[in-house]
Amino acid sequence: MIKAGIIGGTGYTGIELIRLLLGHPQVDVNAITSRSEIGKKLSDLVPNFIAYDDLVFSEPSVSLFSDCDVVFFATPNGVAMEMAPELLAAGKRVIDLAADFRIKDQAIWEQWYAQAHAAPELLASAVYGLPEHNRELIRDAQLIANPGCYPTAVSLAYLPLLKSGKINPHQLIADVKSGVSGAGRAANLAGLHAEVSENFKAYGVNGHRHHPEIEQTLQEMVSNGQVNLTFIPHLLPMNRGIHATCYGEVYSAHQADDLTQIYQQFYANEPFVSILEAGQHPETRAVRGTNQCILSVNRVSETQVVILSVIDNLVKGAAGQAIQNMNIMYSFPETMGIDAIGLLP
Amino acid sequence: MIKAGIIGGTGYTGIELIRLLLGHPQVDVNAITSRSEIGKKLSDLVPNFIAYDDLVFSEPSVSLFSDCDVVFFATPNGVAMEMAPELLAAGKRVIDLAADFRIKDQAIWEQWYAQAHAAPELLASAVYGLPEHNRELIRDAQLIANPGCYPTAVSLAYLPLLKSGKINPHQLIADVKSGVSGAGRAANLAGLHAEVSENFKAYGVNGHRHHPEIEQTLQEMVSNGQVNLTFIPHLLPMNRGIHATCYGEVYSAHQADDLTQIYQQFYANEPFVSILEAGQHPETRAVRGTNQCILSVNRVSETQVVILSVIDNLVKGAAGQAIQNMNIMYSFPETMGIDAIGLLP
Amino acid sequence: MIKAGIIGGTGYTGIELIRLLLGHPQVDVNAITSRSEIGKKLSDLVPNFIAYDDLVFSEPSVSLFSDCDVVFFATPNGVAMEMAPELLAAGKRVIDLAADFRIKDQAIWEQWYAQAHAAPELLASAVYGLPEHNRELIRDAQLIANPGCYPTAVSLAYLPLLKSGKINPHQLIADVKSGVSGAGRAANLAGLHAEVSENFKAYGVNGHRHHPEIEQTLQEMVSNGQVNLTFIPHLLPMNRGIHATCYGEVYSAHQADDLTQIYQQFYANEPFVSILEAGQHPETRAVRGTNQCILSVNRVSETQVVILSVIDNLVKGAAGQAIQNMNIMYSFPETMGIDAIGLLP
Amino acid sequence: MIKAGIIGGTGYTGIELIRLLLGHPQVDVNAITSRSEIGKKLSDLVPNFIAYDDLVFSEPSVSLFSDCDVVFFATPNGVAMEMAPELLAAGKRVIDLAADFRIKDQAIWEQWYAQAHAAPELLASAVYGLPEHNRELIRDAQLIANPGCYPTAVSLAYLPLLKSGKINPHQLIADVKSGVSGAGRAANLAGLHAEVSENFKAYGVNGHRHHPEIEQTLQEMVSNGQVNLTFIPHLLPMNRGIHATCYGEVYSAHQADDLTQIYQQFYANEPFVSILEAGQHPETRAVRGTNQCILSVNRVSETQVVILSVIDNLVKGAAGQAIQNMNIMYSFPETMGIDAIGLLP
Repeated sequence: MIKAGIIGGTGYTGIELIRLLLGHPQVDVNAITSRSEIGKKLSDLVPNFIAYDDLVFSEPSVSLFSDCDVVFFATPNGVAMEMAPELLAAGKRVIDLAADFRIKDQAIWEQWYAQAHAAPELLASAVYGLPEHNRELIRDAQLIANPGCYPTAVSLAYLPLLKSGKINPHQLIADVKSGVSGAGRAANLAGLHAEVSENFKAYGVNGHRHHPEIEQTLQEMVSNGQVNLTFIPHLLPMNRGIHATCYGEVYSAHQADDLTQIYQQFYANEPFVSILEAGQHPETRAVRGTNQCILSVNRVSETQVVILSVIDNLVKGAAGQAIQNMNIMYSFPETMGIDAIGLLP
Repeated sequence: MIKAGIIGGTGYTGIELIRLLLGHPQVDVNAITSRSEIGKKLSDLVPNFIAYDDLVFSEPSVSLFSDCDVVFFATPNGVAMEMAPELLAAGKRVIDLAADFRIKDQAIWEQWYAQAHAAPELLASAVYGLPEHNRELIRDAQLIANPGCYPTAVSLAYLPLLKSGKINPHQLIADVKSGVSGAGRAANLAGLHAEVSENFKAYGVNGHRHHPEIEQTLQEMVSNGQVNLTFIPHLLPMNRGIHATCYGEVYSAHQADDLTQIYQQFYANEPFVSILEAGQHPETRAVRGTNQCILSVNRVSETQVVILSVIDNLVKGAAGQAIQNMNIMYSFPETMGIDAIGLLP
Repeated sequence: MIKAGIIGGTGYTGIELIRLLLGHPQVDVNAITSRSEIGKKLSDLVPNFIAYDDLVFSEPSVSLFSDCDVVFFATPNGVAMEMAPELLAAGKRVIDLAADFRIKDQAIWEQWYAQAHAAPELLASAVYGLPEHNRELIRDAQLIANPGCYPTAVSLAYLPLLKSGKINPHQLIADVKSGVSGAGRAANLAGLHAEVSENFKAYGVNGHRHHPEIEQTLQEMVSNGQVNLTFIPHLLPMNRGIHATCYGEVYSAHQADDLTQIYQQFYANEPFVSILEAGQHPETRAVRGTNQCILSVNRVSETQVVILSVIDNLVKGAAGQAIQNMNIMYSFPETMGIDAIGLLP
Repeated sequence: MIKAGIIGGTGYTGIELIRLLLGHPQVDVNAITSRSEIGKKLSDLVPNFIAYDDLVFSEPSVSLFSDCDVVFFATPNGVAMEMAPELLAAGKRVIDLAADFRIKDQAIWEQWYAQAHAAPELLASAVYGLPEHNRELIRDAQLIANPGCYPTAVSLAYLPLLKSGKINPHQLIADVKSGVSGAGRAANLAGLHAEVSENFKAYGVNGHRHHPEIEQTLQEMVSNGQVNLTFIPHLLPMNRGIHATCYGEVYSAHQADDLTQIYQQFYANEPFVSILEAGQHPETRAVRGTNQCILSVNRVSETQVVILSVIDNLVKGAAGQAIQNMNIMYSFPETMGIDAIGLLP
């Protein structure tokens, strides 16, 4: 049994994290914090927690977490980097669900996030928490940079083909669609029901913060570290779920390979990645509320492969993956507390 | 540990029941059946179960359930009454999620369900499985008639005021709204997304099968057994959730009573009923995927009370309540396996 | 051909008003204004108007409208009362789509809208623009108070039965459900897609500003001016449409009357009110984007009547009715410019 | 004034066609037909038409249309080819909204539509009704093959770059998303609200009937008639709208060209195609209920261009384009009857 603290519990990611941790048999939720809601009951703000009316928001501080083993940040970008150094110095392990420690190159981070980095000395030792790529490093990590939602869906889609060198890393196109909860829980005109429902559009065609994060991961997968990715995100008129449609050019030497079999073998021991037969279509609702990623690998012409990839942006794309990382860090069974079956409908 | 069989596992109620039973620590799902899908994997039909690829549909038969302690029917109306007698004779306990055993009066049942009843001899001993009303009878029941979704939401709303004789039982109006999953999982034009979304309407204004079921329960709550209820159902452009807006006339002798306090006391020991303060508004998503009923009791004029009641039609209104009944029947903790926190969003 | 000015063109009501006026063969849209968007093209803010790229927002002022015959206010409550006196003095006719002139009793208005009224001298002469109730007064009005969306749906539902004295005016219950566009186009947490979709709840159970407005209209319909109405609004997970389920007690002397026939006769000459047969269910999408109100009148017991009423909150409940009033004021055919057929789906 | 007949008026396309034709100032809707609804009023089936209660479905026959100038088929694939020859012989002009005459190569058509073609002699003279590509041929056509919804969105996106030879026609990827009305109005499990909403998936990854239709059109745009297109359709949880995200490789000789300017010039005289600035994102709701196509052209790297394209699948992708073709055929102003502004929201 470990004790966990959560900083930032009023956004969709924070609420999801609390929901999942309350059901985890080896975790005691020791403290939840929110600067804006100090002293308020979680259940008054979010009646879904009506059976847990003893959870009250505190002000975040290092001393508040003195009993905690691990502290999660479910805060806006730029918060964790201010407070993580002290927590690490106090011996806490830290899992940041925001972007503060995801990009290794400080200059690139500062360019995309438009601020100076407050703890650049931690960038080298922070471990990018994508277990299917980095499981061994995660085990001993003190500081986890939990991956973004788009990067998780796209990286898992390309991983087997890039690592095995079967596709051209210079011809990657990821056309990705996300539910609206990915934009967070803050009042804004563009997120209104009357703006989002019965509507669909691309956004960020001029550039998106997840682009450098995805490229960094994909570069680690190829021998010479060179990839070219076109990445276009779109906003879906629904709440949860990401669907990545990932295009690639198979090298002619590999045109006869059974790509589905390659994926099945690559992910054979992964508890959270499932491979459908070619021609089948993963759907986002199959993974809603779960930590699963479902893939299918489809050769649509001699040279063209299309990988379909779905996750729940708030679970495998955020809170669930954070707990998967925690499970690895504390040698709990990897699926503990995150083995739910998705609601249908 | 008990063994459970499920007849009819391809509708929304059956799928929800399987989902919940697979997570129940004291239940082994021994057999699932579907006449139309014999031999097929559940996970091929419903990829949400991708991690449970050993579940295969069998043909329903009494011998198939020879190892089972309890058999659930998640079938269309009229199926359970054909097979339940044999199962009961074989010593199985039976929980019917359809309507076959809900109405005590055979003639009324046959009128509303437009068929002859195949097992009228069981109507008297079948226990109506609304635990907040009938818990003691449920404990020893061999045959449970699991309540309908509308009847659950409306009955829990009126129960404390009717039992205490504070409102006029001849002036009851229940204006009820349901998500579309209540209509089942069958191909029909009226259920299409393009017919349901961005649309709202009443239905069944000339009469609905749940009307006699609700009246039967409300009649048991008043001393002279006389109630008059107007019941108007409506179809919501969403999947899960029922919201009942229940109107009543408070007797003048009780106009100063603190109605919220009466509800809080009445339901104080109920694990699945929560009372908000007057003026607060329960919302369906707070109970989505959970077995909770949330109520608020509002006096809007000297004589008029409005009770707001929400449940998830597939959980407290169907599969969850069935498991709650099973927990009571087998002396498991009543919340076992049905204590989830609702997903948000 | 008349010239129209519009104050407040960036909300859903204002946008709908511009859309409809641009298609009106006898109206020239002379000026649109928005304090926050001065100098910007409407089509840049709302690409639906991409074919009308000459429409640019100006700052509202009396002189701007010097060429206009009529000025519409599609502004928040409290704006029209500041500017209307000057416009009226300048000979303009004014149609206020907000609530400033709807309540005749200044004290009641100030209580519900929590501010002092800036032009109480206009309250007596302002005409409440519900044509089915006030057509003759509208013809010569200089200042129209365009009705609220809920009041339109509920008033049209009760009008024939109250005016003919067939129902008890002290037992009225209106259970009303509205799409989210009724809440306006402003950034707020509660209006987010992730808060509204797959969710349903009541609101304002302690009181709603439309309650006194509805009661004022209903009182004008009964001989002694006394009504008691319970009014509970609910928020639907969709954009457009209001459905009012209106309950009433038919006097015993009238229990044999053909209520549907009464409605058909009462509304026989109304171009925008249609009556379905009893037992049929009007649906909101049938009136989406149109100025229609569709009703059905259902006797559900000897004494109980249930009137179902649907309108589009932005058309018959706002911009369309404003144009209907304008058509009456200028002796245009009453359906001119507002005779669209609703999109399906 | 011309007289029009409509065969198949009960699907979404047929209903939309009737809605638009009823508002067309130069068209008299002379006859509507439906084999399944003979003798029924349109307004009883679709209350949106409540103000047009004289429209009654007849049985389709050549004699029924003896007074008609033009006959539209809004039928399932395979119906028009049976009846068109007789109608043409009787001097009627025919516009088929289904796929019977879209593919010039009979063998390809028979392969994809899995039936023998009943009127192959008409394939050569049928004109593919994409006005931006074929306007002159449309003018004198007797038989119009109205384009599919996906082909319209994708063809308009690629047209200027392919015709001008600036992109590699062998590296085309169209990732396309459609609202559910594209699947038609027939009872089927996959179209249920509870299956579609809060869900997203690709479909047809092994091949889709619109693929050969798109390729045929794109081939006409390039000098040597050779293109390679990857086409992946997806199902959106909404009713109306198509969004095509179209990827292409700009030839190095053209990397400095102003692509947006090329599109603006190419489509300068087109009443139904609008070009946004690069970096802007067309959204489907801006064209809902309208005949517009909105595009933006975005260079996302030295060599990669991404064209975003939106249409309403039932209007520019079906009924609206059919009327645009009719307007051209009869020398009416091209926008007559199809110049609506899209509802918001």
